[in-house]
Amino acid sequence: MSKVNATLSNINECFPENFSEEQKAKTKTFFYKRLAEVSHDFYGGKIQTIPKAAVAGFNWFNVWYTPGVSKVSTSIRDDNNRSYDLSNRSNLVAVVSDSTRVLGDGDVTPSGGLGVMEGKAFLMKYLGGVDGVALCIDSKNKEGKNDPDTIIEFVQRCQHSFGAVNLEDISQPNCYKVLDVLRETCDIPVWHDDQQGTACVTLAGLYNALKLAGKRIEDVKMVFYGAGSASTTCLRLIVAAGGNPKNAIMFDTKGSLHSGRSDIQSDPRFYRKWEICETTNPNKVLTVEDAFLGADVLVSLSASGPGVVKPEWIRAMASKAIVFVCANPVPEIYPYEAKEAGAFIVGTGRGDFPNQVNNSLGFPGILKGALLVRAKKITDNMAIAAAKSLANFSEKNGIHPDNILAKMSEPDVFPYEAADVAMQAIKDGVARITMTWEEAYQLAKASIQHSRGMVDSLMKEGWIKPIPENMIQEAFDWACSQCK
Amino acid sequence: MSKVNATLSNINECFPENFSEEQKAKTKTFFYKRLAEVSHDFYGGKIQTIPKAAVAGFNWFNVWYTPGVSKVSTSIRDDNNRSYDLSNRSNLVAVVSDSTRVLGDGDVTPSGGLGVMEGKAFLMKYLGGVDGVALCIDSKNKEGKNDPDTIIEFVQRCQHSFGAVNLEDISQPNCYKVLDVLRETCDIPVWHDDQQGTACVTLAGLYNALKLAGKRIEDVKMVFYGAGSASTTCLRLIVAAGGNPKNAIMFDTKGSLHSGRSDIQSDPRFYRKWEICETTNPNKVLTVEDAFLGADVLVSLSASGPGVVKPEWIRAMASKAIVFVCANPVPEIYPYEAKEAGAFIVGTGRGDFPNQVNNSLGFPGILKGALLVRAKKITDNMAIAAAKSLANFSEKNGIHPDNILAKMSEPDVFPYEAADVAMQAIKDGVARITMTWEEAYQLAKASIQHSRGMVDSLMKEGWIKPIPENMIQEAFDWACSQCK
Repeated sequence: MSKVNATLSNINECFPENFSEEQKAKTKTFFYKRLAEVSHDFYGGKIQTIPKAAVAGFNWFNVWYTPGVSKVSTSIRDDNNRSYDLSNRSNLVAVVSDSTRVLGDGDVTPSGGLGVMEGKAFLMKYLGGVDGVALCIDSKNKEGKNDPDTIIEFVQRCQHSFGAVNLEDISQPNCYKVLDVLRETCDIPVWHDDQQGTACVTLAGLYNALKLAGKRIEDVKMVFYGAGSASTTCLRLIVAAGGNPKNAIMFDTKGSLHSGRSDIQSDPRFYRKWEICETTNPNKVLTVEDAFLGADVLVSLSASGPGVVKPEWIRAMASKAIVFVCANPVPEIYPYEAKEAGAFIVGTGRGDFPNQVNNSLGFPGILKGALLVRAKKITDNMAIAAAKSLANFSEKNGIHPDNILAKMSEPDVFPYEAADVAMQAIKDGVARITMTWEEAYQLAKASIQHSRGMVDSLMKEGWIKPIPENMIQEAFDWACSQCK
Repeated sequence: MSKVNATLSNINECFPENFSEEQKAKTKTFFYKRLAEVSHDFYGGKIQTIPKAAVAGFNWFNVWYTPGVSKVSTSIRDDNNRSYDLSNRSNLVAVVSDSTRVLGDGDVTPSGGLGVMEGKAFLMKYLGGVDGVALCIDSKNKEGKNDPDTIIEFVQRCQHSFGAVNLEDISQPNCYKVLDVLRETCDIPVWHDDQQGTACVTLAGLYNALKLAGKRIEDVKMVFYGAGSASTTCLRLIVAAGGNPKNAIMFDTKGSLHSGRSDIQSDPRFYRKWEICETTNPNKVLTVEDAFLGADVLVSLSASGPGVVKPEWIRAMASKAIVFVCANPVPEIYPYEAKEAGAFIVGTGRGDFPNQVNNSLGFPGILKGALLVRAKKITDNMAIAAAKSLANFSEKNGIHPDNILAKMSEPDVFPYEAADVAMQAIKDGVARITMTWEEAYQLAKASIQHSRGMVDSLMKEGWIKPIPENMIQEAFDWACSQCK
């Protein structure tokens, strides 16, 4: 048994020799969770704010603050577009959540979402060169219920401080109304990463999986297991990209969706689900077993696994079956198990398995692209452009069944995506300023290199300390002891 | 004529030789404003967010984000106090404004406040080691009126993401209700820097000015020119510290405040002003001229000058007159003019004149102290403790009429203040955790050194570029040309 190294790259060599695949998978989850707790404690969170302008002596406070800054106020007052030039707004995203559906853990109280939202800001900066601010809010109304209107009002009030809004981890059905109303009423892009981000990256993965399986999006039979906002938006985007809704069957906790589901029809808050009832599953297939029979594609975004998707369901699928099991923090079925049951390609939401089909491949580039041209919104076309961009970029670098998408460690993926998204924004008439593809690409690339270089420099110069190695090993040993 | 240097420290040597004192003062204001606009444009704002935790390879995203971060969510859900350990919350302040009374410029639209609020975050970090987030919000209700209840609701909703809230530049009378309601209903400190911050630093300046003038706070006759929230809170805090309200006369735009002012009594939103009508100016002195006659202290927080406070008023004051003229961006009377009229000590809000009586000497230390012990609120006792702390620290280093308060460039002033405030929070029973004075002092000192060291390092390594020197000189030349 080796010791776990500082980059966590040798974990597979560190397990006790007698560990099964299942034990290893479980241990990883225990390890990352334990390490997360001790490392967040060690740093006291993971995001900070610092000046991006020089402080050449204290006289500069007369410029950065009063009296000089008065001119910044009046310039913006006289032309609000100047706020994009004179403040950090043009590179700043509010990460807003009411923490009612955080990863697989449900309602974790408003503060409980801070780890995830700071994480989002962390990824935005490191991957996309975008600044993010975590805003975990209490969305309860006077009756004590989580109310979509409270989130809508909150975002409408603070939109003038940001270049875009990233909604996150808002429970169903509130998330539909929050997104749809804010997209219509805000003057900046409002992106719900659980819905649109997941849909966009899943579509990218599907594009490349279909290439490898030699199948066409128009033809494939699809099962959507789970009918949360991520899943319904996935279906909507796949259909917009050419998928045939008549070939799709979606399941929620009560069974399959079809035009006979009066329980869904009768609750207007679930209008997005009802659209799916009306357009998919024309034969009203009822059981999971029947739906999986001969299916080409599974998109599962349901409950944290393992054991949620059964091996026998996979076994019933068509040859060269494409399986996306993307629940967090643990996939509905472990990849090794799905492969054993005959899956051709397995994608999960996790970075420690092959084929990470995770939002992290999308939002940094998409938001960067939208911000570069100061977009007023992110259209569905822009989301599809991002998916195609990601798929094409990945294909260029070589794809195979255990590598359908580029990894987020490839720094060029995000500038490429950002430029494609920026161009689509211009085409769709939602950009405040225009530029060429090459300009957008170079700006995004420089910004991302700057972010990473800055963090590396702070680490090298000792301003960000490394995690003590014994802390890592202790977490790993503890995780192993839990799974023996 | 010299060229202006990069630290702006030689401006006084750079004016055309024939410039009068008045021309020089005007030119400075023009210069700082012009330079502010071009430098904010150069950087695109002045605050950014970056990781404060190490990124030792991409595997760490399994820790900082999913799946590991799930444990952070559930730990905070199970014990909300853990949010102070596991997120950046314990060092994070929301800088909230509705931008309706920004410096001397009034309502500048929500985005218009971003320059000032980012500036606040900039100072917080550099002076106090505190992270700040600028939230400029639209406070209009459905009738299109700026409504204090909208700000109250906004802050209540997002308080769980922060360790404290710094309210700023909210117009009268809304600011009274906003502060008073939020102080009562939030579980974190809510500080209105225009009111409490100004009051606290003014009190500190007054303590030391009185020592130099050989007068006692109980005896001095005081004129408060201006009756905005800063001014009324100043009076309230000075009285809490021993000043005699019967010796005070305050003026608003309609004249002096006294118990016959039925216009104030009849508007319940101005309850703070009415308290002052009832307790001060027992002889109902009506004119400014009569009020200044023999006054020892002027606290003017009214409209941007010059020409707002007249030299003949100063001339009518008692010997060793103490004059605080703190309007932004330009004092009500220029210091040289007040001195010519016989003032013994003149303080302004600006750093380019002697005796800066400016919030910047207070809030970084006060907020740091409150955050260190995770205070639930900032009591009036804590504000008075901060004032005494600042006065004592300054006295220790030597005071004279042109140097009544420490400068914010003295790094030790803020840890000293933070420790005194933290101790008062513990005494007042509003601290969530306790520590000794020495512990608080050392923590604050280390955090501030860390902030400054980090910014210096980013500048040294080229991640924060310097402002081009020709940009500085061009702004200066332009300012001179405007004042010829």
